[in-house]
Amino acid sequence: MIDRPTALIGLDWGTSNCRAFRLSLDGAVLETRVAAQGILAVTNGDFAGAFSRLVGDWLDAHEMAPVLMSGMIGSRQGWVEAPYMRLPAGAAEIAASLVSIPLGGRAMRVAPGLVGPALSGGEDVMRGEETQILGAMDLVHMSDGVLCLPGTHSKWVELRNGRIVRFATFMTGEVYAVLRAHSILGRLMGEDAHDPDAFTAGLARATAAGGLLHQLFAVRTEGLFERIAPSGLAAFLSGLLVGHEIRAARAAMPGARIVLVGTAALTGRYAAALRADGVSAVEIAGEDAAARGLWRLADEARLGRV
Amino acid sequence: MIDRPTALIGLDWGTSNCRAFRLSLDGAVLETRVAAQGILAVTNGDFAGAFSRLVGDWLDAHEMAPVLMSGMIGSRQGWVEAPYMRLPAGAAEIAASLVSIPLGGRAMRVAPGLVGPALSGGEDVMRGEETQILGAMDLVHMSDGVLCLPGTHSKWVELRNGRIVRFATFMTGEVYAVLRAHSILGRLMGEDAHDPDAFTAGLARATAAGGLLHQLFAVRTEGLFERIAPSGLAAFLSGLLVGHEIRAARAAMPGARIVLVGTAALTGRYAAALRADGVSAVEIAGEDAAARGLWRLADEARLGRV
Repeated sequence: MIDRPTALIGLDWGTSNCRAFRLSLDGAVLETRVAAQGILAVTNGDFAGAFSRLVGDWLDAHEMAPVLMSGMIGSRQGWVEAPYMRLPAGAAEIAASLVSIPLGGRAMRVAPGLVGPALSGGEDVMRGEETQILGAMDLVHMSDGVLCLPGTHSKWVELRNGRIVRFATFMTGEVYAVLRAHSILGRLMGEDAHDPDAFTAGLARATAAGGLLHQLFAVRTEGLFERIAPSGLAAFLSGLLVGHEIRAARAAMPGARIVLVGTAALTGRYAAALRADGVSAVEIAGEDAAARGLWRLADEARLGRV
Repeated sequence: MIDRPTALIGLDWGTSNCRAFRLSLDGAVLETRVAAQGILAVTNGDFAGAFSRLVGDWLDAHEMAPVLMSGMIGSRQGWVEAPYMRLPAGAAEIAASLVSIPLGGRAMRVAPGLVGPALSGGEDVMRGEETQILGAMDLVHMSDGVLCLPGTHSKWVELRNGRIVRFATFMTGEVYAVLRAHSILGRLMGEDAHDPDAFTAGLARATAAGGLLHQLFAVRTEGLFERIAPSGLAAFLSGLLVGHEIRAARAAMPGARIVLVGTAALTGRYAAALRADGVSAVEIAGEDAAARGLWRLADEARLGRV
């Protein structure tokens, strides 16, 4: 089997992980590598060293291939700061705002994050998701509508005419993780097995009276009175939080179809919740979206072309 | 100065602390002691030893004085379990449900917790607060209306004809503490200085669009864009959470006057928030309410009387 030429080395380099893709001229992923080498794990600011350890052999083997990175690597704590750019932003605007990293004679760029008005007032920001969004748009041929990227900080995104015109962050995943690990709610919980019934019970509870800070206490009392088994309490908490996120996000960004981008475990939960509300959902793997977005941006910027 | 006779030794014995009161026949507090000896700090179930270390000299000096305890000491993890009793409950009902601890020939009792329907469905519980509520009712001569006991797990309580007929728990204090200590929101925060302007900004943000999980991210972005100084971010988070609690609680339990029971720092913040909404607030120290509630229950149960 003859390998197709490598047209781009793309990196989705976040806080906790770095995922590297070797991509062909038409955007096919030729090879993928993942390292638990997020920017927080890079000591003494030696990003060049971490970069070389992860993809040094690719660089040697493909001397002409340009490099494009997205994610927290472009933050103030990263390798080179690529300042947040203001909405609206599509592939053309983002490609025009790539920032160079000087390293040998190779074309090497970092994508900027985005800044826009928060639903609640003030500013909202994203970094890394903009690239996954561009990739998802390309994968499903979408230029208008709503996407959701569930995760530690879920992003809901509104597209118009191929550009991101609005987005909102929800701290759902992080609130789930800290409550599970550090609050009284984690005490009665068993393993983090997925329990669809308990998740659905959590979604339903999110529509009850009392608001989130009251409803959270139900994770304790449902356990205390043995109405939900210990193995279901984490899924119940997840359903409660996801229910609140979806309701608040859809109040701002309705839509009969939502494109979900992320890990299968998460997009599956969100898809189930949306379908229960009569909303259709399309699921895209976050990894695929990142690879395609990096390729799309490099193509738009004509990186490595004459 | 001649000491008045000790008619009751009362203990508010919670998860983290134990507060002991020596009380006169008319309910005056003759002496108070506090120890960081909550039930979680008692090893090998040696509650008798912990009890003796804290008030052994009182027991020796006042051989006829009965002992009454409230709080987590009556939970399944405590000394003797005093099962949750069901609403409605006033002093008479709670006094009739005291549970005995056998220790020498002395009258020694533990107060039960309360259970009632949660606003969100299922059950809600309290343990220890019922005694503070009875005390507060006595201190302000109140038999109808709404009380709020802000804290780790805030309780809102509705009284009718001298009995607790409904209550709701809000995890405000615990959510604040875990987000501050363990989430990204704590990273930019300075000292926990009280900043009334930032607290008010948080209260205002709680009424904006996007819901709590979205609004929480503003604690990060307001810090990131230097719209709120690091020293104000904790108060901003507090205002955001307290605003959500008060709005949800008042939707279920409106009232033109709220009696607040707790530490001065907390009741002061809640009073400011309520007054901004045109609601009057009366503040009672939690310690005073606990002492008075223990005395009220002992009196109702005729503890130590012939």
